[in-house]
Amino acid sequence: MTDAFDAVLPAQLPAPQEATAYAPSNIALSKYWGKRDAGLNLPLNSSLSISLAEWGTTTTILPADRDEVSLNGEVLDPASSFATKVVAYLDRFRRGQTLPVRVETVNTIPTAAGLASSASGFAALTKAIDGAFALSLPEAQQSMLSRYGSGSATRSFWHGFVRWDRGADPAGMDSFAVPVEAPWLDFRIALIKVDTGPKAQSSRDGMGHTVATSPLFPPWPDRAEADCAAIEAAVRAQDFATLGALAEANALAMHATMMAARPALTYLKAGSWQVLEALWQARAEGLEAYATMDAGANVKLIFLKEAGADVRRLFPAAEIIDPFGYSP
Amino acid sequence: MTDAFDAVLPAQLPAPQEATAYAPSNIALSKYWGKRDAGLNLPLNSSLSISLAEWGTTTTILPADRDEVSLNGEVLDPASSFATKVVAYLDRFRRGQTLPVRVETVNTIPTAAGLASSASGFAALTKAIDGAFALSLPEAQQSMLSRYGSGSATRSFWHGFVRWDRGADPAGMDSFAVPVEAPWLDFRIALIKVDTGPKAQSSRDGMGHTVATSPLFPPWPDRAEADCAAIEAAVRAQDFATLGALAEANALAMHATMMAARPALTYLKAGSWQVLEALWQARAEGLEAYATMDAGANVKLIFLKEAGADVRRLFPAAEIIDPFGYSP
Repeated sequence: MTDAFDAVLPAQLPAPQEATAYAPSNIALSKYWGKRDAGLNLPLNSSLSISLAEWGTTTTILPADRDEVSLNGEVLDPASSFATKVVAYLDRFRRGQTLPVRVETVNTIPTAAGLASSASGFAALTKAIDGAFALSLPEAQQSMLSRYGSGSATRSFWHGFVRWDRGADPAGMDSFAVPVEAPWLDFRIALIKVDTGPKAQSSRDGMGHTVATSPLFPPWPDRAEADCAAIEAAVRAQDFATLGALAEANALAMHATMMAARPALTYLKAGSWQVLEALWQARAEGLEAYATMDAGANVKLIFLKEAGADVRRLFPAAEIIDPFGYSP
Repeated sequence: MTDAFDAVLPAQLPAPQEATAYAPSNIALSKYWGKRDAGLNLPLNSSLSISLAEWGTTTTILPADRDEVSLNGEVLDPASSFATKVVAYLDRFRRGQTLPVRVETVNTIPTAAGLASSASGFAALTKAIDGAFALSLPEAQQSMLSRYGSGSATRSFWHGFVRWDRGADPAGMDSFAVPVEAPWLDFRIALIKVDTGPKAQSSRDGMGHTVATSPLFPPWPDRAEADCAAIEAAVRAQDFATLGALAEANALAMHATMMAARPALTYLKAGSWQVLEALWQARAEGLEAYATMDAGANVKLIFLKEAGADVRRLFPAAEIIDPFGYSP
């Protein structure tokens, strides 16, 4: 089985040149949860996301005498978790060649939003590597390679709606994302921060624990695949009520698989449920907004522009994103 | 198919005489969730409970000129939901015979505990009917018949641990409860009331909705059956850590099946999760107590006598029950 990096990269990389790239973060409306191959980071099911416009990561690569990684302007200890991951990912491209670089990572996601930055981080890093080593790989191939850094990074190469196809190839060469060409200018996202301590378990570990121990996990992959297709159809039809109900149900089902894990995995906290209860109460009174939650306590809402004032009234601290209002 | 009541009752009932009976409420440590036959109230899986000693229902039946139902000393409107259910259940026994009775029901469950009383109610009613009509049915048959009133009533005919076997007979003649002869004098239960409004959906409706719509329901019956056997083994071995972990996981899995229903069914509220988070924090610091939750927002804890002081400190408003400390 050919390694994916060997398959798409030239045998020798040129000396690095300076390159900068930006990638938006993304939120899955149809979740990725569970791997069919942990080594290749291959998912059990396809997923569909919306990108977060100007909330993302800008990464610059520069020639250097030795590898150096900075985050938000601060040079990191090479032994830090972040620097180790970045260098390990670079090494997949360099495959033994001595091509030291300096990697400058700047996240534009407000800390208050409580969003993970690994998706935009690995996508921006991949794009910057592509530029620095003059690879000119098609975006689909960059998306495929970014999967080795973080599964959700595959979806961060485009703005708007993006679908990551699970693929069928055991080597994972067909498991990458593609843009869903269906702009929806009134589509909005709100991020509602729920204060909690640090995450108990990374999403990678939580996924593995759930797949291994949750008696309710087995039906998830088929349902998630069906949800992904139905959610894409609702996006293309701009059928917001169907999209919202499906996205919320898909997220709750993912969290249900974790809640049934043994022992239980509960990223959602009492504060998350307070937000959901307030949302459901408002929805019963007419507000068209739906929730989605990832491997953390924060709650994200989706709604259309016309519901914006009501969402702000209900959740004054929410950060609101206009995913199609991005101007580079 | 013979009707279960025809099968075990004499063709004609005698005139009623006064009879009084008591039945304790019970809490399932291994849950009943999902029916294989809604008409016969037959469960998809076996369940195991602990009875609540002096918390239950006392029912008296007296001869009368016409049916009359009172609850906690108050005569009810015959059209009320409670009176209608009691008379409909009586009619299953009377099968067209004119044998009017007065039914006096007194619940000894503190309202503050927020516990349902249908289990003890239908068990006490069945026992009182047995006495009033001089039936002298074995308890197993009374348990089997009480299933038509409320599934969980089958487990309220005994103190201590009780197992309701799902049975295999399509007519349900073998689906009744049996006592698990394994007294555990140090076993304790705490009821922690979580304030919420009225229940959104009865457990009967919630069960049906979950079975019909939850993509995660299909693995539940097999897992619940396995949990029931493992929980019984832990009870018999007095292995509290195993029992507690299994009971908590079983309850969370049941709630996970509901959370994945479409639309989601969430009997647990933000306040329930606050209790669970406080419990998990205390458990991480050494407290040996585990939670179980039914079709409502309240949380029940199980623990051994030695943990009582810590449980009281953590949840000062908890009601604590000694299930083997009952003296009639």
